[in-house]
Amino acid sequence: MAHSDATEPFDLILMGANGDLALRKLIPALYHLFCDNRLHRQGRIWTVSRSVPSKSAMLALCKAAMLEFDPQVTFNEGTWGEFTDYISFVNMDFEKSLGYEKLQKKLKDVKRQRIFYCALHSKLYPTIAKQLAHSGLITQVSRIVLEKPIGSDYESGALINKCMAEYFSESQIYRIDHYLGKETVQNLLALRFANSLFEHQWNQRYIDHIQITISESIGVESRSGFYEGTGALRDMLQNHLLQLLCMTAMEPPASLDAQAIRNEKVKVLKNLKPITGADIDEHVVRGQYEAGFIQTENGNEAVQRYRDELGVDGHSVTDTFVAMKVEIDNWRWAGVPFYLRTGKRLAKRACEIVVQFKQVPHSIFEMQHKKTMANKLVFRLQPDEGVRLQLCEKRIGHHQQVRPMTLSLKSSNEEEARIPDAYERLLTDVINNNPTLFLREDELMAAWKWADPILQHWQDNDLKPETYAAGSWGPAAATLLLAKDGRLWEENNE
Amino acid sequence: MAHSDATEPFDLILMGANGDLALRKLIPALYHLFCDNRLHRQGRIWTVSRSVPSKSAMLALCKAAMLEFDPQVTFNEGTWGEFTDYISFVNMDFEKSLGYEKLQKKLKDVKRQRIFYCALHSKLYPTIAKQLAHSGLITQVSRIVLEKPIGSDYESGALINKCMAEYFSESQIYRIDHYLGKETVQNLLALRFANSLFEHQWNQRYIDHIQITISESIGVESRSGFYEGTGALRDMLQNHLLQLLCMTAMEPPASLDAQAIRNEKVKVLKNLKPITGADIDEHVVRGQYEAGFIQTENGNEAVQRYRDELGVDGHSVTDTFVAMKVEIDNWRWAGVPFYLRTGKRLAKRACEIVVQFKQVPHSIFEMQHKKTMANKLVFRLQPDEGVRLQLCEKRIGHHQQVRPMTLSLKSSNEEEARIPDAYERLLTDVINNNPTLFLREDELMAAWKWADPILQHWQDNDLKPETYAAGSWGPAAATLLLAKDGRLWEENNE
Repeated sequence: MAHSDATEPFDLILMGANGDLALRKLIPALYHLFCDNRLHRQGRIWTVSRSVPSKSAMLALCKAAMLEFDPQVTFNEGTWGEFTDYISFVNMDFEKSLGYEKLQKKLKDVKRQRIFYCALHSKLYPTIAKQLAHSGLITQVSRIVLEKPIGSDYESGALINKCMAEYFSESQIYRIDHYLGKETVQNLLALRFANSLFEHQWNQRYIDHIQITISESIGVESRSGFYEGTGALRDMLQNHLLQLLCMTAMEPPASLDAQAIRNEKVKVLKNLKPITGADIDEHVVRGQYEAGFIQTENGNEAVQRYRDELGVDGHSVTDTFVAMKVEIDNWRWAGVPFYLRTGKRLAKRACEIVVQFKQVPHSIFEMQHKKTMANKLVFRLQPDEGVRLQLCEKRIGHHQQVRPMTLSLKSSNEEEARIPDAYERLLTDVINNNPTLFLREDELMAAWKWADPILQHWQDNDLKPETYAAGSWGPAAATLLLAKDGRLWEENNE
Repeated sequence: MAHSDATEPFDLILMGANGDLALRKLIPALYHLFCDNRLHRQGRIWTVSRSVPSKSAMLALCKAAMLEFDPQVTFNEGTWGEFTDYISFVNMDFEKSLGYEKLQKKLKDVKRQRIFYCALHSKLYPTIAKQLAHSGLITQVSRIVLEKPIGSDYESGALINKCMAEYFSESQIYRIDHYLGKETVQNLLALRFANSLFEHQWNQRYIDHIQITISESIGVESRSGFYEGTGALRDMLQNHLLQLLCMTAMEPPASLDAQAIRNEKVKVLKNLKPITGADIDEHVVRGQYEAGFIQTENGNEAVQRYRDELGVDGHSVTDTFVAMKVEIDNWRWAGVPFYLRTGKRLAKRACEIVVQFKQVPHSIFEMQHKKTMANKLVFRLQPDEGVRLQLCEKRIGHHQQVRPMTLSLKSSNEEEARIPDAYERLLTDVINNNPTLFLREDELMAAWKWADPILQHWQDNDLKPETYAAGSWGPAAATLLLAKDGRLWEENNE
């Protein structure tokens, strides 16, 4: 039986199927959708790779990845077998027309939603678009999904967008940011716009500051080839962190319609206060990890410094950490700092949005740490998803003392099924032609426009990142960034 | 070891020690304080009664009451034995000087906090005050505690206050309302004034309406002699419900100081919009219960109508139920109805303050019952104490649907000791001379002044109460009172 929420019939052409992203995220997401009967029976997944020789080799890779990386599944051989019947394979050199032509033969008369998913480096996107067009693969119901980062600065991003626009209309281009597909980010919208209690106070009169952190404990691992020369600002901040900032800061859209939401998001990006000149060293902290210790299930594990992981000459000015103080120049947010931070080899893996409300203007109770007792709403996206609200309550039996207490909004959801991975939501959205949670061209360009002066400044001055020990919370300057304002990062505040 | 929170040394003279209140509430509260080492070693409880002949008879009554009424204690014979050493007994006719003189001989040279606790009908208060004075029992460190209702209207209330003022200064007079001693009422202050999230929205811009309910499932029982001619408005609404209204509606006091809090409370009482003339029938519902069924642990139990319980002539216009729509004429609350309701023989025993916030002005989500999904903060005082907050969250896996969910603020307190009874808090406050949670003379008189026109209207027109079945939620007119405004009582809203 097809699920009532099943997608439309589709062909999903997964280019770069043997890559990190496809194996870790996309294949598991598709498998879960299949298990839940969310994929239309009239659907087909075309795994496309240059280096994998055969379908059986591809399936072996997929299965190994499922078993290694997917935490949610109790893997079932029978279901997996059924799922693999869904999968086809095409060997293809993305730069040459041969593979595209093979694919065109197979898809020629098929009239289904057609999705080209580019799980590859963005420098390949123009070539792929051109080849798809030349081989006649792009139909009216075709869409192309582009993974981040799209380009490495404003100019290269604009160039990719321009090439895409030659072969696809803007409504066919799905720029994916999987953080937008996370349930908690959706819940952020619900909590803001379905609860008068929060949205009425969602502005500079009531909010002291906002922190957004995406921290990873892993290093660059097998991605060092890609990562060197990219760095944290391009890889994470310019896309994921700014997107979370948009969802947190945007004005209430008039509807959940894609244009309404994207119009509000792009307004935030365009209103970001530019960080230029001397402000860059004042407001931005760049770091690169040294050797250190990472906590694992088996205790502390000694890990290398970034430069040694590179395996090249050991010289690098790539940022594996970036923290910054961002402001939004509009009526709602004037004067409210947004502290953003991301990095590799940090103390733990986490992703949180902390909305710190102002203190009560006058306290009639005994409050030992008045500042830390102010109300706080925390959206946690990783490792587990959930929302918590910090309130103050009276201590039972004590006359004048209050204390902070935390309400978890997670518990009520326990009755429900597992929380679906962001890619499950986003893949069905692409198939069903719902672009709400994808970036529009102007959003991407506004983000690059804002980030460019910082990247340029670093490059022009050949600035070295500050160092931090692997397993710490980044360079001391990141702590100082908030301390100058009399504040602390959330993990120091608990 | 004395507890660090132990009271000062004291003599507590408990007049009416064999009455309902003393046995059900005061003796258990004192016993719990004793068990927790909260009573000073240099303390003595003088049980005073006219009808009980001896200390042993008194102690037998106390012990029987403990075992019957006290839900919190695992009664311990040994501790009880120690506690009874704390207790003295005096047989006394409150109208005659003999008993007072006996007491004076025993207390003559004792210099401790001296508390006269009047757990009696308020018509005896003037006599008691006069006798205490004449026998020389009132010292500088004496205080008198008066139970509600103090008088039966403005005139009689004023008379009692006048008599008291002849023998006691206002700072020595403790008008008790035990609802103010409940932990959840204290927590209401903490939630309001220690959380910017709530207090910033605690006004007519954000709050739709407020409901305050005190419902009892019991009938008048052994109190029919007192109850007939008193009724729900005098017995419950004029004191308990108005006090809860004051705590909910008052402006933020500058401190927790007794005068600061009472100044704010009396302002609310003085700003209550008078209900007079034709408004009375429009805004006030009076009821009296008929026969019906009450849910008990053993199933439904058939119960008599009020008039039959009286055992007299069966004619009565006494209100066993009253509901009304109250408004406060000030900047904060203009236009926000406060719906108050209390009664006997209702569907269940409960006491709740429901703060209903307004709906979101515009919903971008699918909300099936937009109105019932608005945010709501509920303070529950009975039968169990706690606070709950209703929010809306996104339904997992559903794109545009939100649903209401309830956060309980109770759980975080589970680690703590049992919740102390209100009388424990209030008795220690009296001994320690902290009048914050007691009514000042002007509060009492403002409450009577507001209630008088309604009482007078009923009396002048010999109006019969509407009837309601025991075990229901009161007369149909009470439902209509809210329905006219497009609203529902909380229990119909869940």
